[in-house]
Amino acid sequence: MLKLYGDPGSGNCYKVQLLLSFLGIPYDLTYIEVMAGETRTEAFLKMNPNGRIPLLRLEDGSCLPESDAILYYLAEGTRFWPEDRLARARVLQWMFFEQYSHEPFIAVLRFWKIYANKTPADEPQWAAKEKGSYAALAVMERELTGKDWLVDGGGPTIADIALYAYTHVAADGGIDLSGYPAVRAWLARMAEQPGYMPLVRRAAA
Amino acid sequence: MLKLYGDPGSGNCYKVQLLLSFLGIPYDLTYIEVMAGETRTEAFLKMNPNGRIPLLRLEDGSCLPESDAILYYLAEGTRFWPEDRLARARVLQWMFFEQYSHEPFIAVLRFWKIYANKTPADEPQWAAKEKGSYAALAVMERELTGKDWLVDGGGPTIADIALYAYTHVAADGGIDLSGYPAVRAWLARMAEQPGYMPLVRRAAA
Repeated sequence: MLKLYGDPGSGNCYKVQLLLSFLGIPYDLTYIEVMAGETRTEAFLKMNPNGRIPLLRLEDGSCLPESDAILYYLAEGTRFWPEDRLARARVLQWMFFEQYSHEPFIAVLRFWKIYANKTPADEPQWAAKEKGSYAALAVMERELTGKDWLVDGGGPTIADIALYAYTHVAADGGIDLSGYPAVRAWLARMAEQPGYMPLVRRAAA
Repeated sequence: MLKLYGDPGSGNCYKVQLLLSFLGIPYDLTYIEVMAGETRTEAFLKMNPNGRIPLLRLEDGSCLPESDAILYYLAEGTRFWPEDRLARARVLQWMFFEQYSHEPFIAVLRFWKIYANKTPADEPQWAAKEKGSYAALAVMERELTGKDWLVDGGGPTIADIALYAYTHVAADGGIDLSGYPAVRAWLARMAEQPGYMPLVRRAAA
């Protein structure tokens, strides 16, 4: 059986769980607590030298890190990875956008606020992270206006799953989605897909 | 003919040019000067709402941004994109590593130093960017020790091209590669590949 190492409260982990849920693929989940240093142990670094979650362990023991590479691996041959070469490149375009222009802002604010219990007064970068968050949302709003999904083709792809993960909990980091109606409609569409599962954050100890 | 919008001195643009050179594909290059605001004009934002280079314009007028998505588009069906599903996922793993854990450190230091003419005294984040740069190099050194290429298969893939681009000019940002012999041997292997082209930075005005 597939084994997923991660924290279901992390958007990068949740995006993998959401795809597994849509596809109806069973897996074992091993909870890894980043704040307790569990991604920096020698055993974990042997599985992922970059010391990050999520990590997918395949049935033959191979270990695959990087949330969006895991999404690709699981989606190949399914409706979540298009047939057309340009459509595939566009899916990757949005996944690279997510990791470079979206996650480092929206996910970091959420991490600071709900994991590290920081306030804007603690972090000189807070305003810059908010600015980057709203810039990413503006790009998404422009793209999703008049479209159901980021990449045309009749249903969501792993591009939508990748960007859904942190966008739908952006409010956790203080980001206000009220000015982004196309983004909010797209979030609602995603939550109506068969097999959808919500993000569940473990209660603080 | 394909049209590439970018700055040949940018690693993100150069990586696309390097693949086009390996593949022997002709293209037109339109020089876009980021520091002069040319990625923020309305005409450019129509092609890429995220306002970044490089951007590939296909023969039918479609515009594809994100350097690593462009690499995928050009590599599909060639020796630079493997046949095997897990090998493909590993190629993407290293490309997402590049955009999340490597480029934001090594490329940013280079940008600060040779484009923005900044010094460590100007930037409170300088030391953190150096730390992140050496962390990324350590992950690569561990992976490349005893291997010719990041993803096994007999030759370089777009993972190697993506990571080569900024690694081989890391010294521009003050990064010292002397402690990373496997990385240096891999850089030398890449420069020996048939069709290789060097990065050429436009002389300052």
